[in-house]
Amino acid sequence: MPRTISVASYIFKRLQQNGVNHVFGVPGDYMLKALDHVEATGVKWTGTCNELNAGYAADGYARINGLGALFTTYGVGELSAINAVAGSSAEKVPVVHVVGLPRRDLIESDALVHHSPGLSTLYSRREKLDNLLFRRMHEHIADTGFNPLQRDEEKIVRSIDETISNAIKYRIPSYLPLPSDMVAQQIDETHLDRPFLGRGDDPKHLTNEAVEKILHLLYWARNPLLLVDRAGMDHPNMRKLLNEFVRYSGIPTLTMPSGASMIDHKITNYYGVHAGPVGQIDTMPYVNSCDLVLAFGPMFSDTQTLGWSVVPPETKTITVAEDHVNFFGEKDETISISLEMLLKTMTESLDTARLAKPDTTSLGDFRKISPPRVKNLDEPVDQTSFYLRLNSYLRPHDIILLGNATPILGGRDFVLPDSSCRVIASGLWFSIGHMLPAALGAAMAQQRSPKSSDDAKRGRFILIEGDGSFQVTAQELSTIIHQRLNVTIFIINNEGYAYERLIHNRDEEYHDVAPWDNSRLPDVFGSAKAKQRAKELGEQYSVDTRNICTWRDLTTFLASKKFDNGFDGRGMPGLKLVNVQMAKADVPEKFKAVFESAGKNLD
Amino acid sequence: MPRTISVASYIFKRLQQNGVNHVFGVPGDYMLKALDHVEATGVKWTGTCNELNAGYAADGYARINGLGALFTTYGVGELSAINAVAGSSAEKVPVVHVVGLPRRDLIESDALVHHSPGLSTLYSRREKLDNLLFRRMHEHIADTGFNPLQRDEEKIVRSIDETISNAIKYRIPSYLPLPSDMVAQQIDETHLDRPFLGRGDDPKHLTNEAVEKILHLLYWARNPLLLVDRAGMDHPNMRKLLNEFVRYSGIPTLTMPSGASMIDHKITNYYGVHAGPVGQIDTMPYVNSCDLVLAFGPMFSDTQTLGWSVVPPETKTITVAEDHVNFFGEKDETISISLEMLLKTMTESLDTARLAKPDTTSLGDFRKISPPRVKNLDEPVDQTSFYLRLNSYLRPHDIILLGNATPILGGRDFVLPDSSCRVIASGLWFSIGHMLPAALGAAMAQQRSPKSSDDAKRGRFILIEGDGSFQVTAQELSTIIHQRLNVTIFIINNEGYAYERLIHNRDEEYHDVAPWDNSRLPDVFGSAKAKQRAKELGEQYSVDTRNICTWRDLTTFLASKKFDNGFDGRGMPGLKLVNVQMAKADVPEKFKAVFESAGKNLD
Repeated sequence: MPRTISVASYIFKRLQQNGVNHVFGVPGDYMLKALDHVEATGVKWTGTCNELNAGYAADGYARINGLGALFTTYGVGELSAINAVAGSSAEKVPVVHVVGLPRRDLIESDALVHHSPGLSTLYSRREKLDNLLFRRMHEHIADTGFNPLQRDEEKIVRSIDETISNAIKYRIPSYLPLPSDMVAQQIDETHLDRPFLGRGDDPKHLTNEAVEKILHLLYWARNPLLLVDRAGMDHPNMRKLLNEFVRYSGIPTLTMPSGASMIDHKITNYYGVHAGPVGQIDTMPYVNSCDLVLAFGPMFSDTQTLGWSVVPPETKTITVAEDHVNFFGEKDETISISLEMLLKTMTESLDTARLAKPDTTSLGDFRKISPPRVKNLDEPVDQTSFYLRLNSYLRPHDIILLGNATPILGGRDFVLPDSSCRVIASGLWFSIGHMLPAALGAAMAQQRSPKSSDDAKRGRFILIEGDGSFQVTAQELSTIIHQRLNVTIFIINNEGYAYERLIHNRDEEYHDVAPWDNSRLPDVFGSAKAKQRAKELGEQYSVDTRNICTWRDLTTFLASKKFDNGFDGRGMPGLKLVNVQMAKADVPEKFKAVFESAGKNLD
Repeated sequence: MPRTISVASYIFKRLQQNGVNHVFGVPGDYMLKALDHVEATGVKWTGTCNELNAGYAADGYARINGLGALFTTYGVGELSAINAVAGSSAEKVPVVHVVGLPRRDLIESDALVHHSPGLSTLYSRREKLDNLLFRRMHEHIADTGFNPLQRDEEKIVRSIDETISNAIKYRIPSYLPLPSDMVAQQIDETHLDRPFLGRGDDPKHLTNEAVEKILHLLYWARNPLLLVDRAGMDHPNMRKLLNEFVRYSGIPTLTMPSGASMIDHKITNYYGVHAGPVGQIDTMPYVNSCDLVLAFGPMFSDTQTLGWSVVPPETKTITVAEDHVNFFGEKDETISISLEMLLKTMTESLDTARLAKPDTTSLGDFRKISPPRVKNLDEPVDQTSFYLRLNSYLRPHDIILLGNATPILGGRDFVLPDSSCRVIASGLWFSIGHMLPAALGAAMAQQRSPKSSDDAKRGRFILIEGDGSFQVTAQELSTIIHQRLNVTIFIINNEGYAYERLIHNRDEEYHDVAPWDNSRLPDVFGSAKAKQRAKELGEQYSVDTRNICTWRDLTTFLASKKFDNGFDGRGMPGLKLVNVQMAKADVPEKFKAVFESAGKNLD
C-alpha cells in the first residue's frame, strides 16, 4: 500500500521544498487542524499580533528569501491581510497566502457560518452572498486558480503545485484556500517527489531571440544605460545573475530608488540611484544623453520619479520583466522569456569589444559624497545629514529597511559596503507601517533559515521608521522581541506624519499623532521574559532603548558596541530601539521639491 | 450669483445632516485637500493609528449613532480598512467609506501613481491594472454606485446623496471615492437644502399588506415568539419602535446573543437571550413548542446558534429585515416594506385581546439568576462567575462592548438596568480586535455628540476584551487616551487565544501570544500628556490601571469610585485598564459545549 500524507502536510512540504521555512499568521478556528501539520512538516509557525502584519512579514521574508507564506482564517483574517497581499502584488513579491476555509459542504451551500459575508443587502436583497466572495476579492491581486471545492486527488495535487509555482514564476501572490475538511484528506506521498509544474518549461527559442535583439541594440547604442529596479527581479538567483551582467558588460548602470541595493555598490560602472535633480548627484544630464535604456523590473511610479519627470522616454527603453521583454513600449514588440536564462545568456554572449565607451563624467562618484560637517555636536539631529552620516557605520551583511515615511527619501543615499548588504524599500505601494513587520519577516528569513550562511545570520537588521508609520503596526515589536531577533530600529520622531505635513498645510492638527513614549515600549512588550528565555537556552539576547536628540548622542551610540553588534560579532544580539527626536517639519533638504511636486499633482 | 461650496464640503455637510459629527481615519496625500473641508463643515476629524482601526471605530460609532463614517486614502488605506467594512456589511451597520483618490485624469489613464495596483502579472501580463480595481473589490460589500470619474454637477450631487442614503436605507456600507481634483470643484450651495433622496419613497401599500398578514398570523398562533436580533434593526429609532411593539403586544420575546440589548430588560414579557441548552435558562422547550416565530434582523450564524441547532424551523418563521418581510422562507413570499412604518403600524393596529396567552413557565426569569457564591475571596477570578457578578455593578447608560474572544460568550448573561444600556456584540463577523476601536467610536458618538443627553454623556463604556484580541488593535488605546474618553477596559488575560485553545489541541504553542505587561501601556501611550491637557482645559481626566488576580481584588475595584464613575457622576472620567489574570484554559463552564460543537464542524 502506498504511504499517504494529508493535503495540509503536502502544501507545507511543497512550500518547504521551495525554501519556505517559516509561515506567518494568526490562528483562527478554520485553520486549527491545518496548524498541526505546519510544524509537523518542519516549517516553523510564527504567530503575529494581527493578519495585516503577517502579510507584511511574509512580504519581508520573500524579499530576502525569494518566496514567503502567510496563513490566515476565512473572511476576517484574509481581508485583514489583503492590503499587504495587494502590496506584494503591486511590487511583484511572491508570497503564498494560505487561507483556512469552512468545510466544503458549508461553502457549497452558502451556509451562514461565522466570518461569512452574510445576507446581501445590495443587489439581490433576498439572496445570501456567495461564500467564495473573498476569493473573488483576491482575483486581481493574486493567482486564484485553486478551486477549494474540488475533491479529486490528482486535481488537488496539481493545482496546489500550480498555485505555488505561479507565485514563483510570475512573482505574484498566490491564494490557496484550504477548507477544514480538506486538511486531513489523505493523498499519495509520492506526489512530493514529482517535479514541480512550471519548471523546465522555459521558452528557450524566444529567450534567445530576445537576447539577440537586446545585444544588437546595445552594440548599436552610443550612450547606453542599464537602469535596475526590483519588481520581479528581487530573487537571490536573479540578483546574482544581474550583477554578473552589469559587472561584465561595464555599461553605465543606475538604479531606481527602490532598487538601490540590487547592484553591488563596489561595481565601478554602477553610478548610484537615479533620482534626477533631487539626487546627491544629478543623473539627468547622462540620462538625457542616452540613446538606449535597458530597464530591469522598473517601477516608474510618480513618487520615485519626481512625478514621472525623470523617466527615460519609452521610445528609447527596453523593459525586462519577470517573464517577458518589451521593446520601446510597442505592444507587438513583446517577447516571452525565462528571466534566468536571459540573464545568463546575455552575459555569455556579450562581446564587450563591440560596446561604446560613453562619457560618464557627469555621473560623478556617489561613494565619495560626504555628509555636511556638523559644527556643533550639541545641535539636534536633522534628516539632511542623518542618512549620509550613517553610511560610515554600515557593515557587510547589514540589511536596511526604509519605512514608508521620510526614511524612504533619505535612505536613497546609502553607500553599501558590498553586495551582501540590502536596502528594502517600496517603489510603488508605499504602505505606511509596512516595514516593521517586514523587518520581522526579513530577520526570520536570514537569521533562522537553514540555508543562510553563518555570516549572513550575524548580519544586522536596521529599520529606519517614522513615528506615525511606527504606530500603524507597532505591536509587531513584541513579536520581534518574543522571537529574539537582532533588529535595530531608528524611529525618526517628528510628532506626526511629516511626509504629509510637507505636502500640504503643515500646521494642521490632522498631521499629528498621539504622543507615545516609544523607548518604554520594549519593556511593556516582554523584553524581560525574552532575556530570561535566552538565558534558559544558553543564548544571548539584549534589549536596549535610548532617546537621541543631538549629534553627540547619536555618534556615541553609533560608535558603541551596542550598535556595532553585526557581522564582526563584537556585540550582543538583540533589539535596539533608538528614538531620534527631530524638529516637527524636518525633512532632507533635497526633497522639498518632491513634496512640492506631490502637492501639485493633487489639483 | 449663487453661493457655491466645494464637493468635499458638500459630502461632509450631507453626512452631518444625517447625524455624523465625527469622521475616523488616517491622513494620506490623496486626502489632504479634502481634510481641510472636514473641520470647516463642523465635522470633527479623529485620527486613528491605522485604517483598520478607523473602520472599526466608524462601525462602533454607527452602532450607537445610526450612521458612521471613515475616510482613508487610495489603495493602501482603503484596503487596510476593508475587513472592518466587510464586517459592517455582514452585520448590516451603515457606514460611509470616503476614499481619497488621485486626480480623475490619472485614474482614467491608469497612470502608475503611488498606491495603484501596478502592472498586472496575472491575466494579461502586458497590461496595466485598472486604477479603479479597489472600487471593484468593494462591490459586494458596499454600495459602489458613485462614479468618481463623472464631472457633471447635477450627477455628482445626486449620486453623493444616493450613496449616503443607500447606507441609511439598506443598512450597508457605502463607498464614496473622491478624486483629489473633485475636492474643490464648486457646486451650488442650495443643493444642501434639497430633501434627501430615498426618503419618503416608502412602499406604503405593501407595508400595510405585510402588517395585515403578520397580525393575522399572530392572532392565529397559540404559542408565538418574538425573536429579536440586531442586523438592520440597530438604529435608535428602530430600537424605540421595536421596544414599544414588544411591550404593548405582551408576546413572549427572546433575543439572539448579538441582539441582547435590543430589548429593555425591564419589559416583563422579555425572557432574555436564546442560547438554547447553553443559556443560563434553557430556552429550547419554549422555542420547540412555538407555532410562530416573528424574527427581527436575525443573524443565525453557526457560532451563536450552537451550530444551527437552536434555530427555529424556517417553516414557522416570519423574518423582518431592514426593507422587507419574508414569510416562512418562501422566495415568493417576500414583501418590500418601510421598517419604520411597519413597526409603528403593527403597534397601532394590534388588538391584544386576540392574542393567545402562552405558558411561559419554562422560560423562568433570567433577572433572578445569581452568580455562584465565591467561597474564598482569595481564589482567582474565573469566567464562569465573572460576568454574572458584574451584573450588580451595572448602571443606567452603561454601554458594554464584548470582545470577539471568550467575552462574546460570557457577556450573554448580562442583566441590564434599563433600556439606556447597551451591549455591543458581534453576531456573524466576529473579527478579533474589533471592539477596542469600536469602543473608541462608540464613546465618541455618545460623549462628544451634540445630540446625546447629558445623562448619556456621563455613561460608562465598559469593554471586556481577551488578551489575544487586545493585541490585534492595541494601539487605539492611545487614541482613547489622546481623546480623553471615559472607557473601562477589562482584559481577560489567559495568555493566548483561549477561544481557539478550547476548540482544538489546547496545549499547542500556536495558541500563545507574546507576553505583554498590559497595565503599563497607558503610560507609554501618553496618559501624562492627556491629564496635563485636561488640566489646561479645566477638565478632569484620570488614568488608572490595575492587575487583578483574585475575587478580593476585583470586588474592591468594582465597589470603588474609580469604577463607579458613570451616570451618578461620583467618580472622575478617564481610562481604567483592568488586567484580569485568569487560568490559561479558563472559560465559562456552560460554553464548553460551544467549543466542542465548533471543533466538530471543522471535520
